[in-house]
Amino acid sequence: MNGAQALIRTLVDAGVDVCFANPGTSEMHFVAALDDVPDMRAVLTLFEGVATGAADGYARMAGRPAATLLHLGPGMANGLANLHNARRGRTPLVNVVGDHARSHKRLDAPLESDIDAVAGTVSGWVRRSLAPADVAADAAAAVAAATSSPGAIATLILPADVSWEDGAEVAEPAPARPAPRVAPSVVQDVADVLTSGEPVVLFLGGDAMTADGQLAAARVAAGTGARLMSETFPPRAARGAGMPDLTRLPYPPEMAIAALAGTKHLVLAGAEAPVHFFGYPDVPGHPVPEDCAVHVLSAPGEDSVAALRALAERAAPDAEPVLLETERPELPSGVLTPRSMAAVIGALLPERAIVVDEALTSGVGLMELTSGAPRHDWLALTGGAIGDGLPMALGAALACPDRPVIGIQADGSAMYTISALWSYAREQLDITTIVCDNGSYAILQHELERVGAASDGKRAGQLLDLGDPDLDFVALATGMGVPATRATTAEELADQLRRSLAEPGPHLIDAVLRR
Amino acid sequence: MNGAQALIRTLVDAGVDVCFANPGTSEMHFVAALDDVPDMRAVLTLFEGVATGAADGYARMAGRPAATLLHLGPGMANGLANLHNARRGRTPLVNVVGDHARSHKRLDAPLESDIDAVAGTVSGWVRRSLAPADVAADAAAAVAAATSSPGAIATLILPADVSWEDGAEVAEPAPARPAPRVAPSVVQDVADVLTSGEPVVLFLGGDAMTADGQLAAARVAAGTGARLMSETFPPRAARGAGMPDLTRLPYPPEMAIAALAGTKHLVLAGAEAPVHFFGYPDVPGHPVPEDCAVHVLSAPGEDSVAALRALAERAAPDAEPVLLETERPELPSGVLTPRSMAAVIGALLPERAIVVDEALTSGVGLMELTSGAPRHDWLALTGGAIGDGLPMALGAALACPDRPVIGIQADGSAMYTISALWSYAREQLDITTIVCDNGSYAILQHELERVGAASDGKRAGQLLDLGDPDLDFVALATGMGVPATRATTAEELADQLRRSLAEPGPHLIDAVLRR
Repeated sequence: MNGAQALIRTLVDAGVDVCFANPGTSEMHFVAALDDVPDMRAVLTLFEGVATGAADGYARMAGRPAATLLHLGPGMANGLANLHNARRGRTPLVNVVGDHARSHKRLDAPLESDIDAVAGTVSGWVRRSLAPADVAADAAAAVAAATSSPGAIATLILPADVSWEDGAEVAEPAPARPAPRVAPSVVQDVADVLTSGEPVVLFLGGDAMTADGQLAAARVAAGTGARLMSETFPPRAARGAGMPDLTRLPYPPEMAIAALAGTKHLVLAGAEAPVHFFGYPDVPGHPVPEDCAVHVLSAPGEDSVAALRALAERAAPDAEPVLLETERPELPSGVLTPRSMAAVIGALLPERAIVVDEALTSGVGLMELTSGAPRHDWLALTGGAIGDGLPMALGAALACPDRPVIGIQADGSAMYTISALWSYAREQLDITTIVCDNGSYAILQHELERVGAASDGKRAGQLLDLGDPDLDFVALATGMGVPATRATTAEELADQLRRSLAEPGPHLIDAVLRR
Repeated sequence: MNGAQALIRTLVDAGVDVCFANPGTSEMHFVAALDDVPDMRAVLTLFEGVATGAADGYARMAGRPAATLLHLGPGMANGLANLHNARRGRTPLVNVVGDHARSHKRLDAPLESDIDAVAGTVSGWVRRSLAPADVAADAAAAVAAATSSPGAIATLILPADVSWEDGAEVAEPAPARPAPRVAPSVVQDVADVLTSGEPVVLFLGGDAMTADGQLAAARVAAGTGARLMSETFPPRAARGAGMPDLTRLPYPPEMAIAALAGTKHLVLAGAEAPVHFFGYPDVPGHPVPEDCAVHVLSAPGEDSVAALRALAERAAPDAEPVLLETERPELPSGVLTPRSMAAVIGALLPERAIVVDEALTSGVGLMELTSGAPRHDWLALTGGAIGDGLPMALGAALACPDRPVIGIQADGSAMYTISALWSYAREQLDITTIVCDNGSYAILQHELERVGAASDGKRAGQLLDLGDPDLDFVALATGMGVPATRATTAEELADQLRRSLAEPGPHLIDAVLRR
C-alpha cells in the first residue's frame, strides 16, 4: 500500500470522507488512490478558495471535518483567505497540501515556496510527513488535532514521494480532546452576577448558538431578566420559530456601543469579548462600557451548553423560556430594496433551510424579517475575508443533501470565488443563490464616510463602484451551468425563489436592488 | 499632509504611478488620497490575485514597478500565488498592505492575521510603517528595494491610522542598486570554455532574453558553435524575425534531458542551472548530464547584456549572428487543434504584439509556429502558479497602451482569476484573449501518466475533467463586459482573431479544441 492509499483510508476511518480537491502534479497519486478508496468522496473545485470555503461550510453543518487537497504553496495560498475565516470560526478542517518529492525539495524548483510558514498562519497543527510509514499516523493525528475542542485547522504537508512509495499502513483513529466542562464554582459565580439586580447581558457565541445552548440561555434570561445577545458573526446559529429572540451585536461601532450601553455585567458563553471589526479615528476599539465587568461562563472550546444548563438550574430553576412564534412578513411588492428582498426571504424561507449569509450591507433587515420563519440554520462570515459565501454553501449542501441551502450573496464578494457555481452544477446541489446586486462595494462607501476620509472625488469613487461595465450574474451563472434569472421587483423575486425552491438542483437569482 | 497622501506622492516621485487596487476599510484613506494625487493611476480589480498578477505583467513590460493595494492579511493571501510567480520572475513590485490601526492591533479583531509571515514568503523586503512621519521614507525604501537588481517584491504594511494621521511629508526617491558588471576574468574563463572545442550550450535567462542580450549571444554562438538555449519560462523574451533561433528547454523531463544530452559545458547567462519542475519516480531532479560542467557567465541580477557583449568581443569578434527571417505558417483550415491554433496565431501575430502565454499543454507548436512572426515580446508563467495569464495581460496592456496584447490562456487556469476580464472592459484595453478550451486539466492527465500513478479510474478522471457541465467562456466574458465569440474551426479562429485585432477594446475568443 502506498502512502496516498494509507492516508485516504485513515482519513475515512477517522470520519473524514469528503475531500474538496484542486490537485496538481504533486497530488497525482492521491488522485489515483481515490479509485482504491471509494468511501472518500472527492469534489472538484476550480479554485482553492472554493475548496477551503466549502470545507468550512461542510464542517459547520456536518459537525466533522472535511479534507482539502491543495497543490503546494500556491495552492495553499489561494485557499488561505477562506482558511482565515475557518480559523476565526474554529472550524475543524484537514488540509492535505502536496509538496515536492523529498529529493526534489532542495533543488528550489519553480513551485518551491515556504508552505510551512503560510500554513502556520492559519493552522493549529502543521506537520510534514517524512516517510510512507508515518503518513497514516500523521493523518490520524491531523484529524485528532482538527476535532479537538474547540476545533482547528490541521495541515498535513505531503511530499509526492511519500505519497507514491509503498510501505504504508492504515492507522487507527487518534483520540480528540473533548470540550472541557465548566467548574460548578464558575457557574455559581455567574449565577450570583445574574441575580445581583444589575443590568446583565448574556453574550453567546460558538456552541452556545446551538438550539440547546440558546434554549438554556433563554431560560436564564426569562428567570433573571438578563438580556440575550450574540456575537456579530457566529459560525452557525439555530434560528427561527421556537428559538429565543436573540439580538446580534451590530457591526457598526456606534450601533454596537449603543446596544451595550448601560450594561454592568457582560457574561460570555462560548464567545470572546467583542471588539470592533476595525479601528476608527476617535472611537474606542470595543463596545463594552468602561464600567462593565466581563465574566466568562464558558470560553470558546469549553462546553457552553452544559454550562448554560447548569446556570439555568441555579439561577432560574423554574423559568419558562420566551420563544419566538412563527411569524412571517407579508410578501412585499414593487421595487426591490434590501428590505423588500429580506421580506421575500422571510416570507418564503422553508423549514430546515440553511442560510449562508454574505449579504454584507444588503443584509439590512434580514435578521429581523427572518426571525419568525420556521426553524433554520444560519452561517455567517466569521473572519471578514469576503468570498466565503458561495463556497460555504457548496460545503453545507454536501453535508446536508436533504436540506435546502440559500446563499444570500453580496455582488462584489461573489466575484472572489465565483467558480463555486460550477461545482454546484457538477454536484447538482439544491442551492439557491440570491445575488444582492447593488453594483457597488456599498460597504466601502459607508466605510469611506465612517473613517472620515473626506473625499467625494471621482477617482476614489471609481474604486468602490462595480458598474462600467455592470456585472451580468445571469450570464456568469449560465456560463457555469447554473440556471439563472433576474429579479427587479419583489414579486419577481418571490416567484423566482418559489420556483427555485421547488425545483431540484442549483439556481441563481440576480436580485437587482435599487441603487 | 496625512500618511496616505505622502505615501502616494512619494511613490509617484519614485516612478511608481500605477496601482492595482482591491481596497477595504483599512485602505479608505489611501483611496481618498487618490483624488489628491492625480498622477497615480488606480486600477480596480475584483480580486487581489488579479491585482498582483497585473502588477507582475506591468513591470515586465514597463521595466519599473507598479504598486498593489491589498486589504490586510486575507487580501495579501488572495494575491499570494501571483506574487509567487512574480518572485520567481524577479519582478520589481511594491505591495501596500493595509492593516489595522496601531491601537486596534492588540485586540485580535476578526481580520487580524500574521501579515508579516505571509508577506515574508514572497517578499525580498518587508516593513511596517509605524508613524506618519516614517511612511514616505518607507515607501521610498520600498521602491528602492523592489528596483534594486535583480528585482524583488517589496511589501509595505500600512496601519490605517498611519495612513489617516497628519504629520507626514513627501520623501525623496532612494537609490536602487544597479546590476553589477561581470569581471573580465570571468568573461575570459567562459571564452576559454567556448573555444575549447567541446560541446557547449549557452543558456539564457532573465535580462539575457532582451533583444540586446540575445543578439550578443547569437554572435557568440555563430563564432564558437555553441548552441543557444533558454530557460523554460523566461519572464520576458524578445522573439520573432530578426532574433536568433533560440530553443527553450522543454518542460517534460525526458525531453529536457534529451535536449541537453551530450553537452559538456553549460554556460549560464542570467539564468540558474535548470531543474525539473517536479520530481518523478526514478528520474533525476535536473536535466544537466553528469559529466557536464556548469559555468556562470552572469548570475541573475548581474548585467548579462554587457557580459554577453564582452564575451562576443573575446570569443567571436568577427562573427555575424544567424537571425530568423520573417516566415509565417500558412493559415490552416478545418478542425481546431493546438497545432492549428498555433498556426493561426503565427500567421496573424501583429508586429510589436505582447503575447501572454498560459497555454500550458495547448501551447504545443506555439513556439515553433510563431518564431518567424514579426518582432514581439513573450511573457511566460514563471512560477508555475496557474492563474497569472489573464492578470498579466491586464498589466502589460496598461504598461504598453499602443501595443496589441494577446493572451493565450488554458481553460482551467483561466478560472482562477477570471474576473480580470471585467478590468479589461472597464479600462477598455486592447487585449485579445484566446481560451484554449479543451474541457480538461489536460496537463494533469499527462502528469497522472508521468508519475506512474496506475489509475484510469472514473473517480480520478473526474478530478481532471472540466466538463459536466462545460464552461461557456463566451457567456462568462459577456457577463463581464468583454465581447466574445466561439471558434470551432481554424477559419473561424482566423476570422475572429483578425476582427479582434482590428477593433479597439478587449475581445475573447473561445477556441474549442478537438478533444
